[in-house]
Amino acid sequence: MNKKKLRAIIEDNTTKSGKAFDYFIQALILLSLFTFSLGTLPNLETNTKDVLRAIETICVLVFTAEYLVRIYVAKHPFKYIFSFYGLIDLIAILPFYLRISIDLRALRAFRVFRVFRALKLIRYNRALHRFHIAAQIVKEEMVLFFLVTIIMIFLSASGIYFFENTAQPEKFSSVFHSLWWSIVTLTTLGYGDAYPITIGGKIFTFFVLIMGIGVVTVPAGLVATALTKARQIEEKERKTQK
Amino acid sequence: MNKKKLRAIIEDNTTKSGKAFDYFIQALILLSLFTFSLGTLPNLETNTKDVLRAIETICVLVFTAEYLVRIYVAKHPFKYIFSFYGLIDLIAILPFYLRISIDLRALRAFRVFRVFRALKLIRYNRALHRFHIAAQIVKEEMVLFFLVTIIMIFLSASGIYFFENTAQPEKFSSVFHSLWWSIVTLTTLGYGDAYPITIGGKIFTFFVLIMGIGVVTVPAGLVATALTKARQIEEKERKTQK
Amino acid sequence: MNKKKLRAIIEDNTTKSGKAFDYFIQALILLSLFTFSLGTLPNLETNTKDVLRAIETICVLVFTAEYLVRIYVAKHPFKYIFSFYGLIDLIAILPFYLRISIDLRALRAFRVFRVFRALKLIRYNRALHRFHIAAQIVKEEMVLFFLVTIIMIFLSASGIYFFENTAQPEKFSSVFHSLWWSIVTLTTLGYGDAYPITIGGKIFTFFVLIMGIGVVTVPAGLVATALTKARQIEEKERKTQK
Amino acid sequence: MNKKKLRAIIEDNTTKSGKAFDYFIQALILLSLFTFSLGTLPNLETNTKDVLRAIETICVLVFTAEYLVRIYVAKHPFKYIFSFYGLIDLIAILPFYLRISIDLRALRAFRVFRVFRALKLIRYNRALHRFHIAAQIVKEEMVLFFLVTIIMIFLSASGIYFFENTAQPEKFSSVFHSLWWSIVTLTTLGYGDAYPITIGGKIFTFFVLIMGIGVVTVPAGLVATALTKARQIEEKERKTQK
Repeated sequence: MNKKKLRAIIEDNTTKSGKAFDYFIQALILLSLFTFSLGTLPNLETNTKDVLRAIETICVLVFTAEYLVRIYVAKHPFKYIFSFYGLIDLIAILPFYLRISIDLRALRAFRVFRVFRALKLIRYNRALHRFHIAAQIVKEEMVLFFLVTIIMIFLSASGIYFFENTAQPEKFSSVFHSLWWSIVTLTTLGYGDAYPITIGGKIFTFFVLIMGIGVVTVPAGLVATALTKARQIEEKERKTQK
Repeated sequence: MNKKKLRAIIEDNTTKSGKAFDYFIQALILLSLFTFSLGTLPNLETNTKDVLRAIETICVLVFTAEYLVRIYVAKHPFKYIFSFYGLIDLIAILPFYLRISIDLRALRAFRVFRVFRALKLIRYNRALHRFHIAAQIVKEEMVLFFLVTIIMIFLSASGIYFFENTAQPEKFSSVFHSLWWSIVTLTTLGYGDAYPITIGGKIFTFFVLIMGIGVVTVPAGLVATALTKARQIEEKERKTQK
Repeated sequence: MNKKKLRAIIEDNTTKSGKAFDYFIQALILLSLFTFSLGTLPNLETNTKDVLRAIETICVLVFTAEYLVRIYVAKHPFKYIFSFYGLIDLIAILPFYLRISIDLRALRAFRVFRVFRALKLIRYNRALHRFHIAAQIVKEEMVLFFLVTIIMIFLSASGIYFFENTAQPEKFSSVFHSLWWSIVTLTTLGYGDAYPITIGGKIFTFFVLIMGIGVVTVPAGLVATALTKARQIEEKERKTQK
Repeated sequence: MNKKKLRAIIEDNTTKSGKAFDYFIQALILLSLFTFSLGTLPNLETNTKDVLRAIETICVLVFTAEYLVRIYVAKHPFKYIFSFYGLIDLIAILPFYLRISIDLRALRAFRVFRVFRALKLIRYNRALHRFHIAAQIVKEEMVLFFLVTIIMIFLSASGIYFFENTAQPEKFSSVFHSLWWSIVTLTTLGYGDAYPITIGGKIFTFFVLIMGIGVVTVPAGLVATALTKARQIEEKERKTQK
């Protein structure tokens, strides 16, 4: 009976206590992300550091309790553990325990993985959930786009290496070094730290851009379409439930 | 009787006098925005400043009169005052009166709020009104997009802080400082004031961009779709009115 | 009879002689644009300049002949003269004659208007003609978009002026000077010649970008949709002709 | 009989041996591209260079064998040789043999053409094949877009030359030099190596951007639509085959 009640609180977000629990966890996630960011500020006083560490510990303990209770109330515990949300819940607390058990010198590196906690928000937010659906609709196209982008970036890097290597040997010293230019250019980011100065390189950049824009910015269109579809799917589901 | 005539002039933009009134207010808005911009020019002569202040005062007096008359002729005065347009009309004149009543040293800060007067144009412009409709259609998606963007920017900032902090401690000194890089990069703005120089940071930037472009530029697609819908709604309304 | 034959050559592009005439004029346009570009190169020899001037003169004479013949063969000469294409044909030759008749010191300024000759290509190119149709479909939306963009750029400039004026008085010295930053930022161009350095300015830039991208890049979506419609209209027309 | 078996392995990718062959060739392509990239690294030891050259030779020999076998098993050898994939297969091995037969000094230039080998991946990847279909759907629009882009870039270059030539004679020394600015600006790349400093040039840039964004980023929308169509075509084909 106790288990059933717990499940109602944790897994059902339509009841009053369920909603309260959800908001509590969401607030903790945001608090925990904020303390993580504060902790990276340089020249922090020892006092402040202690407070931040205390908040972090409390957050992790609550998340751990939440994780264990979720396993306890789940109808199929193993299914939950290896589900998308189950893995995220684990990743959210793992860095903390690893940092304690493993050598302290790697502390810094592990600290950053705490940010994966942000992914926990997906479960509690209906709107973010829709992005999750949209992502699954365009999964295949996204993989395709990713492959084409990789090939385009590689070909562009090879081309610009060919044109600019002799003129700017320190910036385009190999195809690998030229990849950075490809990425910055094909996404039209254009930091300005590396750009062609030869006429050949400039003409090549023109053709790369003409073709690249047609490919690299396509996903935006695909995601927009998928979001519209995800909305329709949600609306259908809501009707069926009634 | 007088009230009814006034209402015909102010609220109805199909009659001749109503149109004349609308164009007059629009011209004043543009004039007032232009004098505001002129007033920010450095090294202005005292003479010019006096003229600009006089124009500003006249504009505000007219807007105040307009605001009061609108309250007077409205069928439900309180409904107007707390409506979208009512609040904009108030915001358009408030900075002027606050500047007079409150201490003069905060003068500069308040001056800038005069630009909200530009929002008054929405009422008088049919085309701008359509944007207003489109905005309401995609409101939910926009909030969703906003949340996802915030999360992406935060995760990117954490990641780049991890990779670049040791190499460029002055530019990526904390997660908060790295947020600026995230914003400039995810929107493909690329000012070039902060960019990764380590290999890890560059590879991370690549993945951030690949995922970011698919998310951050989505609203454009959504707004385009919503504008098309807004047009259809308008055309339907026009038909129904006939 | 002579007039009818001429008309067949000049106005009809389905006959053999009509096509030949079209290709000849197109080749001349490209030649003329190329010589114009060459003429801007610094340190040209007097010899080369003379050759370029000769080619230019020949081109203009042919275009003038074409223009006069078009007036002669037109069923309604005045309708042609004031039509879209008629005006372009006039603009293509006018700079040349004005340069001769008016004072020579303004020579440089007029020279650049020769590039309007590129617009002559629209008539001869079926594909470019489709862009013309697409432009007419989205004309209303484009005007709307233009207004919203202008307002957004103005509001952004006012805001950044408020935040950055004290920190960077030379780059954001007035609202007018800040407009340049607005344009470069809202289009995600990001040259890097002006960017916020205060925290307030950076946060403001974030909100400007979030809203700006949703507005400024919309036209691309609208044009893409309009091009699809223009294609359908063309295909319908082709079917009806058969 | 031998020929039929070979064809089953090489041309059919549904059988087990056919799939194994495909994966083998794909792995070789990636290996070959990777060694090419490694070979461009500066300060390589002679030892490493020898290994890379050996791998390259082996790859080319396998690709040559594959090419010859494909000609042998093809039902219409000449049709294969002059097909899209046949030409790519030839281009993938040609640079190697030309480098040996022709003078060694041009070695460097030829080396870069090895990257065309990446195109061989299209055949083996179903997803990349869809991009190929999408490209054919929007071929006409792409040519159209290309023409308009060229004209816009030329007109922008002429305009900025007119405004900026006197102020920055070294960066905008002729229309040809200004083309680089046009490309970097219209694609919103904005490296920051060339930008207008005069008021006229800045206002001109604003109009160029307002018009340019509506044109240059259109292909993204077209490709997105074409990809959706290509998916539908594929799904139909799959149904028909069953």
